[in-house]
Amino acid sequence: MCVGLDTDLDKIPRHLLDSEDPVFEFNRQIIDATHEYAVAYKPNIAFYEALGPRGWESLAKTLEYIPKNIFTIADAKRGDIGNTSKLYAKAFFETMDFDSITVAPYMGEDSVKPFLEFDNKWVILLAHTSNVGSADFQLIIDERDHRPLYEHVIIKSREWATTDQLMFVVGATRADKVERIREIAPENFFLVPGVGAQGGSLEEVSKYGLNSECGLLVNSSRGIIYVSQHENFAKEASKEAAKIQQEMARLLDQYT
Amino acid sequence: MCVGLDTDLDKIPRHLLDSEDPVFEFNRQIIDATHEYAVAYKPNIAFYEALGPRGWESLAKTLEYIPKNIFTIADAKRGDIGNTSKLYAKAFFETMDFDSITVAPYMGEDSVKPFLEFDNKWVILLAHTSNVGSADFQLIIDERDHRPLYEHVIIKSREWATTDQLMFVVGATRADKVERIREIAPENFFLVPGVGAQGGSLEEVSKYGLNSECGLLVNSSRGIIYVSQHENFAKEASKEAAKIQQEMARLLDQYT
Repeated sequence: MCVGLDTDLDKIPRHLLDSEDPVFEFNRQIIDATHEYAVAYKPNIAFYEALGPRGWESLAKTLEYIPKNIFTIADAKRGDIGNTSKLYAKAFFETMDFDSITVAPYMGEDSVKPFLEFDNKWVILLAHTSNVGSADFQLIIDERDHRPLYEHVIIKSREWATTDQLMFVVGATRADKVERIREIAPENFFLVPGVGAQGGSLEEVSKYGLNSECGLLVNSSRGIIYVSQHENFAKEASKEAAKIQQEMARLLDQYT
Repeated sequence: MCVGLDTDLDKIPRHLLDSEDPVFEFNRQIIDATHEYAVAYKPNIAFYEALGPRGWESLAKTLEYIPKNIFTIADAKRGDIGNTSKLYAKAFFETMDFDSITVAPYMGEDSVKPFLEFDNKWVILLAHTSNVGSADFQLIIDERDHRPLYEHVIIKSREWATTDQLMFVVGATRADKVERIREIAPENFFLVPGVGAQGGSLEEVSKYGLNSECGLLVNSSRGIIYVSQHENFAKEASKEAAKIQQEMARLLDQYT
């Protein structure tokens, strides 16, 4: 399970607003309460960027606080021409020390490759996303081979990277697509958002998406971190994380 | 003409590295030297993000320093699910006060619309970009109507916004595409990167891209700001900006 740190000053418990760095304080307590159930943490960069320079300070402190054995994902959806992607990669892999970053594929190979030039770092490329708008362009069918755009993204990008460097974002809200994507990318890990607040089914995603090495990193953000608005929010988040993690363990047993 | 502020500590004149904020000091002198020739400035956000929180401070100071009558573009290529795009919009339109932001279309309507909900702000959507990788996915042909992906992005997004809210990124390196895009988006402004260091022809872009209200915002970054590495770099940048601006004025006369 991946815990999404979509930390929003408008949504965190009110009593934290008096602390010196409320965003970090919230994250610190959430990490303390959930790290035994989490294999990854995924800060959503927009939430920190919206706060200006102090948001980036809170993000750096959060990243530093995450136990070193837990995988970290910068959910940033970056991607630009080569010399620019190289600087985005530097921002998240050197200036900060994330293990991975989410990348948008629209600009093609030379916009993605700079992120792949770092040792022991991962690119998590958008394939089929969990939102309604994913249907606008990702499902356009290529007249040459009758494959949708998102399949082209997967097939082409697998030529650029090993399965130890490249994962795909595969939304839980389209379980029918998960099965198809597992066929064309049997070994790659999938980062799966959309379970919980967005309505995706964990059972269906597991049924169609698991492979022999698990192969799924299912994210929950709002469903864990905002389960309570009270002083005991961290304890409640811990209970919820435990519950989801147990459900995942059960499904892993059942489907692999 | 738009001047791209791709300010890189490895490329600015060495004598500036002693100043308190070298990035801002470089930008300040470039803005002083070029503002009479520029209608827009476009900081490339990756260059600031790579420096961590102090990069964001330099960016905020730069934005503050740009004369208020000059249009500002956050070249950020952001885009995510609705609640997240809303926070990216907040970062660039509220926390900072940019006039516009470049947005990536892969995630569709609900990832773009939050940027359109701000008064007097512009979205500059990636359509056909200037890099080699643009051919990987942007040219995929839809089997239903035989249009490439980038045309779908243009046609669909024009339903979401007025021509006073929406521009397109149209790379100068593919002049053949500029003509076609002008047909399907006759009134929209195009932000045109790729003239200069990337090899696009200003003459061809003008010939095919100009409309009755001009309709083109041609960007030059490295070709202006890094024309000299010496103490007189700003003066040299000014000369180069004047030259490019005069060439643009001539082409505007010739083709409209």
